[in-house]
Amino acid sequence: MIITMSSGATKKDITRVKEKIKELGYESKIFKGVKKTVIHVIGATDRERITQSIEQLPAVERLTPILSPFKMGSREFHPENTIVSVNGKTIGGEEIVIMAGPCSVESEDIVLEIAKAVKEAGAKILRGGAFKPRSSPYSFQGMGEKGLKILAEAREQTGLSIITEVVSEVDVPLVAKYADILQIGARNMQNYQLLKTVGRFNKPVLLKRGISATIEEWLMSAEYIQSEGNHDVILCERGIRTFETYTRYTLDISTVPVIKELSHLPIIVDPSHPAGNSKYVPALARAAIAAGADGILMEVHTQPSQALSDGKQSVKPIVFKELMHDLKNIAKVVGRKI
Amino acid sequence: MIITMSSGATKKDITRVKEKIKELGYESKIFKGVKKTVIHVIGATDRERITQSIEQLPAVERLTPILSPFKMGSREFHPENTIVSVNGKTIGGEEIVIMAGPCSVESEDIVLEIAKAVKEAGAKILRGGAFKPRSSPYSFQGMGEKGLKILAEAREQTGLSIITEVVSEVDVPLVAKYADILQIGARNMQNYQLLKTVGRFNKPVLLKRGISATIEEWLMSAEYIQSEGNHDVILCERGIRTFETYTRYTLDISTVPVIKELSHLPIIVDPSHPAGNSKYVPALARAAIAAGADGILMEVHTQPSQALSDGKQSVKPIVFKELMHDLKNIAKVVGRKI
Amino acid sequence: MIITMSSGATKKDITRVKEKIKELGYESKIFKGVKKTVIHVIGATDRERITQSIEQLPAVERLTPILSPFKMGSREFHPENTIVSVNGKTIGGEEIVIMAGPCSVESEDIVLEIAKAVKEAGAKILRGGAFKPRSSPYSFQGMGEKGLKILAEAREQTGLSIITEVVSEVDVPLVAKYADILQIGARNMQNYQLLKTVGRFNKPVLLKRGISATIEEWLMSAEYIQSEGNHDVILCERGIRTFETYTRYTLDISTVPVIKELSHLPIIVDPSHPAGNSKYVPALARAAIAAGADGILMEVHTQPSQALSDGKQSVKPIVFKELMHDLKNIAKVVGRKI
Amino acid sequence: MIITMSSGATKKDITRVKEKIKELGYESKIFKGVKKTVIHVIGATDRERITQSIEQLPAVERLTPILSPFKMGSREFHPENTIVSVNGKTIGGEEIVIMAGPCSVESEDIVLEIAKAVKEAGAKILRGGAFKPRSSPYSFQGMGEKGLKILAEAREQTGLSIITEVVSEVDVPLVAKYADILQIGARNMQNYQLLKTVGRFNKPVLLKRGISATIEEWLMSAEYIQSEGNHDVILCERGIRTFETYTRYTLDISTVPVIKELSHLPIIVDPSHPAGNSKYVPALARAAIAAGADGILMEVHTQPSQALSDGKQSVKPIVFKELMHDLKNIAKVVGRKI
Repeated sequence: MIITMSSGATKKDITRVKEKIKELGYESKIFKGVKKTVIHVIGATDRERITQSIEQLPAVERLTPILSPFKMGSREFHPENTIVSVNGKTIGGEEIVIMAGPCSVESEDIVLEIAKAVKEAGAKILRGGAFKPRSSPYSFQGMGEKGLKILAEAREQTGLSIITEVVSEVDVPLVAKYADILQIGARNMQNYQLLKTVGRFNKPVLLKRGISATIEEWLMSAEYIQSEGNHDVILCERGIRTFETYTRYTLDISTVPVIKELSHLPIIVDPSHPAGNSKYVPALARAAIAAGADGILMEVHTQPSQALSDGKQSVKPIVFKELMHDLKNIAKVVGRKI
Repeated sequence: MIITMSSGATKKDITRVKEKIKELGYESKIFKGVKKTVIHVIGATDRERITQSIEQLPAVERLTPILSPFKMGSREFHPENTIVSVNGKTIGGEEIVIMAGPCSVESEDIVLEIAKAVKEAGAKILRGGAFKPRSSPYSFQGMGEKGLKILAEAREQTGLSIITEVVSEVDVPLVAKYADILQIGARNMQNYQLLKTVGRFNKPVLLKRGISATIEEWLMSAEYIQSEGNHDVILCERGIRTFETYTRYTLDISTVPVIKELSHLPIIVDPSHPAGNSKYVPALARAAIAAGADGILMEVHTQPSQALSDGKQSVKPIVFKELMHDLKNIAKVVGRKI
Repeated sequence: MIITMSSGATKKDITRVKEKIKELGYESKIFKGVKKTVIHVIGATDRERITQSIEQLPAVERLTPILSPFKMGSREFHPENTIVSVNGKTIGGEEIVIMAGPCSVESEDIVLEIAKAVKEAGAKILRGGAFKPRSSPYSFQGMGEKGLKILAEAREQTGLSIITEVVSEVDVPLVAKYADILQIGARNMQNYQLLKTVGRFNKPVLLKRGISATIEEWLMSAEYIQSEGNHDVILCERGIRTFETYTRYTLDISTVPVIKELSHLPIIVDPSHPAGNSKYVPALARAAIAAGADGILMEVHTQPSQALSDGKQSVKPIVFKELMHDLKNIAKVVGRKI
Repeated sequence: MIITMSSGATKKDITRVKEKIKELGYESKIFKGVKKTVIHVIGATDRERITQSIEQLPAVERLTPILSPFKMGSREFHPENTIVSVNGKTIGGEEIVIMAGPCSVESEDIVLEIAKAVKEAGAKILRGGAFKPRSSPYSFQGMGEKGLKILAEAREQTGLSIITEVVSEVDVPLVAKYADILQIGARNMQNYQLLKTVGRFNKPVLLKRGISATIEEWLMSAEYIQSEGNHDVILCERGIRTFETYTRYTLDISTVPVIKELSHLPIIVDPSHPAGNSKYVPALARAAIAAGADGILMEVHTQPSQALSDGKQSVKPIVFKELMHDLKNIAKVVGRKI
């Protein structure tokens, strides 16, 4: 059950509602929007009793039962799209945002070279991993803070915002110091301690879907972040695991219209990981924008064959540039712009 | 191993090669193209010996080893796209073909009404099932020949070509009498007797991917049709089965660029079955064209709630018309036309 | 809705009920058991009206609503286990039946050699394919009728009953002439014409689960056979397709207790196809019996490396003999015998 | 590449080898067994050069190339079974160990009641969650340290060892203070920071398979623990996610023989989570022991309907007791004992 307070509700009005909920035996969570405050009654089963007790309190505008297990992420709760702001750019609004860069940060020279190339082609955000979750403990694990500094330097020189992954709750303060968007990878989609930790920071979070997470579980993981107070969650579809082996994962393109219906959160698509091969990336990126995605997160590298990770699925800047041209035109067809 | 004969090869030249292959202990299959004839040496393991024996025979242009398990469907074997002709329309060329209509043929009035609506919006081919494979023996199983006659009548009145499913090898002659394209459904993708039977008819075949068939198995099933002499095979991606339940199946959009790389056969996309819900169909159709598909096969119904099957995933003509507008514009972006 | 007639119901009583159902606007199917006749009202939605009209007719014992989509296969409908008889042996009763033999029939000598070996170790039924559904049209497709004759000869010499696959509705009369049990393979689980055809023959049918069929779809396919009048259906779990590649398929061992709860039909397990490797077969066979399966269908070959198909997953007779020893002991633990 | 030192190798001999490896440009990891020390050369590509440089150094017994991506967990590296000791009981040896208890620790009374019941039936280890990873942030998240104290009290009173889950790297020292075995849940199988952390503690770790992890990825995650120095890793199969919905997950029983072939680590089976329903649990537990598992981890509750989590899949003590009887008999058949 969600209680929407009227726009003029005072602190006292809100406290009064909160106490009433407690009196009825339920917990509550406050969600402060730009215009209105809403209060989530957790586990509310006896709707009639709650309605009777609360609807006549001062400044209570309306009560909405939320049937889906995800509450704050639900469109029932928040009908308009959430628009996330990152250094003046917006994600989830009319504009489609392209995030591009190397899989992992390997050296300052290469990162700068790639950053300039993707910026020139129209990307607004630079991606790059400093902490890399790798299947093998014997593989390159990322440069750590040194990598974060390189990303910050690239931001300085190009004006691009930066997104980078955080893999440990302990590292969140460090990564948040440098990054504009905190990325939670697919392997950590249900690392709830990490989700709660980023939920307490004031930085947008990009939450990748786990390789076998249902859409509902994914939205429940977003809820872990939102329920700690951080409402700037961006969802990122990156392919699910199926029996098919010609591609690395199976891009579940249907999540785009499904998420748009169920949730107000922005959804972007990573075409690189499901493809697993740079040859297929442009087709998947075009499909994502045509399906209605709010952005693309993809791997671009100037020397893919030299990359320390995921080189095979990284496209070259020349391919990225041509792709951006197509994406701009498709964006227009679906009433958006890049 | 594939032997390409030069364009001036005579019947005698071809027979000579065929006999040589037999002498070496292998079977062969002849594939006659518009310009050149190619000969497939089945199970050829001793490449060197075959090459030495055959490359100097008259009119032998070149020998190509085909490493993939599918031979006639492989792009190694036939580098240019196969273009299938259906009553003057082409599938697999520059033009993108839209096939639309009801899931099943239910009455002449409804079929004609739908046929006129989809034609007006720009569809070129009318779909509709007269023989329906249903999970339950207690569900409506289709109108049979009466349904085929209704489709033929709709063709007569609208000029649309018709595609309809055949579910039994015994019914192939009957269905082929009425249909312009024979459809093999997902459940029958590995019904090899049915594949061989349609392979002996002179009608294009649309082969849907099984719900858990790998791309390789799908191309091997196409090979069953091609190896009987029918080269007009159109592949149709219609979603695979995964753990996700918000959609009926998971549209594997990546198959579009993968098939385009591996094979010369046209590939079209059915956005209705994976969606399972008309709300998601337009997004998937747009994604398919953006990804490079050669066409769309989708369910349109004037009264979805009254449909005897799959009404939930059928869009109304008004939605179809708007979608066609978008598809035409996306086709332009990817260098195609509708 | 299922109507159970009392044990003394006459033909006239049954006809009266049938006509009443027709009058109410529904179709019906008669299912004659050893003691009682039951009548299935198809698509019955208005339960109250049906009950009122029918419960007072003579010889009507009781009306049972069947909520599951499968009716005749449901345990609600038929609480006791179905016991299938094959030449005096029973499947689904106290005894556990072992079916073993080569993947495909390749020569009389080899089949006889294998038949004698599996008989000696305790198998009761000989398996072997004469019509082989193969992914590639260029692979060995089976010996056809010649293979069936070899199986019949092996039956003659050993007393083993024989089970063999039928892949085409056209071949059913031929295969039924030789086989004691007709096998429907995984690829044809939803080849409804084939299911209906074997449903009209008086031979037990072993129905393998499709590689991505849900348990419900599998029981619905059994329903196609049962609803044509053939009630001797044996289910066979043979592994489903998942992302895991160390094994050929993933044996879904849970189907054994699930089917036992939902249905009265016998369920046996094929440990060879999911394993894909003879090393893993004994463990899976033991697990199947421990889980409560009614039998095992497995591949045994005297010279696995020479087999024309599936040699890798065929165990040698010496391994089979040791396994039979373990299976007998596990059968005792679960209150059964081999 | 793995270098096995002879049993009399001195510290100096080992250091010499280590330095040689460094000189050749590779990193190394030391693995000290009871009798022999082995050294892992990481990423060794130039085998010939390494062999020539190292095989003649003092106390080098032999060099073994390990082709699998997992090294320390590979049977090539360590042919005998690893036997993990927990308070005098062994896991991975002749004896099969049963771990049972409630899903989550809810109150001292209930935990003690269950502990006594499972002990009486023959369980050796008590399971129970104090930190619960839940899909919803609004669900019961566990009692935390209070729950750990209750488990310790149950150990005190019954003599059972205790296994409990740790969900955060930060909590490892706290959980390790109370638990005898640290459990890593399926959701955290690729939470590498957590794996590394438990790898530095001197407590056995039970590592559950992720719901869509391949066997290789699972063994690679074990490698994260082993490569930090903790060799007491117990693998636990708990079902994978597939399309089938009659069960909560699909128990992949084949992992038991596959892991036994690939690795020396003990493997146990959790029949409760894949079943998702207590009705199916005994069949799966019997199957696991028949397949060769080293133990069972299952949920038992005295009042399943009152459990705060997973009550539906918890069996009652009476069922558990009967099951133990069967398991003991099946253990004998496969040459083991409980």
